[in-house]
Amino acid sequence: MTEPVFEQIAIIGAGLIGASIARAAIEYGVAGSVSLYDADADVRRRAAAIGLGDVADTLKTAVETSDCVFLCVPVGALSAVAANAVPAMKSGAILTDVGSVKGQASSALAAAADGRVHIIPGHPIAGTEQSGPEAGFASLFRNAWHILTPLEGGDEAYAAAVSQLEAFWCGLGAKVETMDAARHDRVLAITSHLPHLIAFNIVSTAFDMETVEEGEVVKYSAGGFRDFTRIAASDPVMWRDVFLTNKDAVLECLGRFSEDLAALQRAIRWGDGETLFKEFSRARSIRKAIIDAGQDSGTVNFGRNQPEESPEGDGDEAD
Amino acid sequence: MTEPVFEQIAIIGAGLIGASIARAAIEYGVAGSVSLYDADADVRRRAAAIGLGDVADTLKTAVETSDCVFLCVPVGALSAVAANAVPAMKSGAILTDVGSVKGQASSALAAAADGRVHIIPGHPIAGTEQSGPEAGFASLFRNAWHILTPLEGGDEAYAAAVSQLEAFWCGLGAKVETMDAARHDRVLAITSHLPHLIAFNIVSTAFDMETVEEGEVVKYSAGGFRDFTRIAASDPVMWRDVFLTNKDAVLECLGRFSEDLAALQRAIRWGDGETLFKEFSRARSIRKAIIDAGQDSGTVNFGRNQPEESPEGDGDEAD
Ligand SMILES: NC(=O)c1ccc[n+]([C@@H]2O[C@H](COP(=O)([O-])OP(=O)(O)OC[C@H]3O[C@@H](n4cnc5c(N)ncnc54)[C@H](OP(=O)(O)O)[C@@H]3O)[C@@H](O)[C@H]2O)c1
Ligand SMILES: NC(=O)c1ccc[n+]([C@@H]2O[C@H](COP(=O)([O-])OP(=O)(O)OC[C@H]3O[C@@H](n4cnc5c(N)ncnc54)[C@H](OP(=O)(O)O)[C@@H]3O)[C@@H](O)[C@H]2O)c1
Repeated sequence: MTEPVFEQIAIIGAGLIGASIARAAIEYGVAGSVSLYDADADVRRRAAAIGLGDVADTLKTAVETSDCVFLCVPVGALSAVAANAVPAMKSGAILTDVGSVKGQASSALAAAADGRVHIIPGHPIAGTEQSGPEAGFASLFRNAWHILTPLEGGDEAYAAAVSQLEAFWCGLGAKVETMDAARHDRVLAITSHLPHLIAFNIVSTAFDMETVEEGEVVKYSAGGFRDFTRIAASDPVMWRDVFLTNKDAVLECLGRFSEDLAALQRAIRWGDGETLFKEFSRARSIRKAIIDAGQDSGTVNFGRNQPEESPEGDGDEAD
Repeated sequence: MTEPVFEQIAIIGAGLIGASIARAAIEYGVAGSVSLYDADADVRRRAAAIGLGDVADTLKTAVETSDCVFLCVPVGALSAVAANAVPAMKSGAILTDVGSVKGQASSALAAAADGRVHIIPGHPIAGTEQSGPEAGFASLFRNAWHILTPLEGGDEAYAAAVSQLEAFWCGLGAKVETMDAARHDRVLAITSHLPHLIAFNIVSTAFDMETVEEGEVVKYSAGGFRDFTRIAASDPVMWRDVFLTNKDAVLECLGRFSEDLAALQRAIRWGDGETLFKEFSRARSIRKAIIDAGQDSGTVNFGRNQPEESPEGDGDEAD
């Protein structure tokens, strides 16, 4: 058994991400112990009931003896939580977060800095559409990217803290990448924020069609719609905060998306099959790139019904 | 062993859907034998190599002794294929299809009618993002809806043919529903056609962002984008034909979608968190309805990494 990376860590916000870090840290032996705090007394009770770690009654108790504090709350709550956490933390300890918008997270955390703790914002590119402490599981971060956006101008001690935090995430099975906050927010606007916005929107549109009943939408959702509802079932508070805090990058992507959609709309209206075919053909290659990069499995699941036996198997018999 | 519903069936177009019907018909014993034809000699060769059935060299050979002929070609090819098939078919045989747009399919098939064969358009609400004969598998239609859109004014013999075709699809494990073609096209425009168009479009938009490299889009696609690329990897010819032939219903949905998106865009621009929260919250309930209706599993797979052990299990230990 190797030494844990941190003697003790604190998780603030015991939801999907916080609970997953807590479970993984213990299961993979990268933290000696885990203390947790959540603003919601009911969440604290549930977190304790499922054995997530040492659930504290106050934020101060959770953080004061911890070597690394993980803020796992919605982005909009980071400022207030960081301001409460920092004064209670040990000197030389690390303050990090998992928020989906790094520009906002960085300024929220940096504003709370008092020179005694190392501020290292971060974001795991892993999640599910569920929330709450019960949704967490240890393997969530395995083979996922974890992006760190260290602040500029750090000294040697800061660099050492960054390395330690990297080692922690690697211990959870993640692959760590470092970039600046602005670049993170541009990349995530197109790979995550816009897809979620579109998914939320199409579900709203379907709800409001008077010509088609909601029951029919549900019944025939296997034609493609259900895949959007999965993403659109994500936490509304988290996503509200994402769009409020990554406004510019999201609006830029959204403007382009609408422009492109107008071109497809025009092609449909005028029966321009060539344009449609050309646009649709490009999409296959990016799918292949994602599977080749190990970012998704090639297993078909749009149909959900899995083959009972492999077609190749049948073919061998027939050869 | 019960009697097969049809002594012999013919599959025209040995792609994903055609190959799946061929495999299922034999495996579940609902057809005595299956003959196949595809316009593409290479597809015919591959279909024969994997043992899909009796692969014929001409359409005529495939259909002339069949009791039911399934046209499994893109919607735009239905007119030409139906016109060639009908004169070669036995009197009293059934001509059906699996095309995703039923208004167009119905007129294409009806135009070929000569009074001797029963024309019964149909559409299975099941599929994957793959195509070609190798993509087919027997269980594709199990627990899926199959929509039949019978023509108006049929006699008793026609009604009996519809019942027989229903029995066939039930034999493949599908649940059969009957409705008129226009209603089908309105329902599928929102549950399937619009979602696919949106997915194709977002992939195009991501491709064309100069501020974010394609490699980054692929690398960080687990944040939501990859779920769209799965749908957008669907066959471009099939989807071109869908949008060219279900124009009105798709444009109606698209107009509403763009209107709704403009409202979200405005809320983001003006920092209206209340509107965002309200819209995002509605989406969770429709997701729940889809899972309750058995149209998707509640298993989280957005994160792809499955729990290694159930959190409930851990909880019991801690209780
Ligand atoms: N879900 C994903 O897929 C995903 C992926 C990557 C990153 N993230 C980021 O991870 C963070 C947490 O997301 P999540 O999915 O884990 O959300 P979640 O399951 O809703 O958990 C968040 C928890 O934080 C608590 N909380 C809110 N304000 C707090 C405060 N001021 N002090 C202490 N606790 C507070 C919430 O309590 P209440 O129940 O009272 O609100 C809730 O229990 C967000 O910043 C999000 O951007 C999420
Ligand atoms: N994929 C789905 O998810 C799904 C779901 C429900 C319904 N459908 C419908 O099912 C139909 C077939 O789709 P699919 O996914 O099975 O497509 P696919 O895998 O591309 O198969 C279509 C096959 O038909 C062949 N073909 C094209 N024109 C033909 C002609 N004139 N005569 C004979 N064969 C011809 C094609 O040959 P080439 O290779 O030479 O083009 C191809 O082998 C479409 O109408 C679609 O709307 C599809």
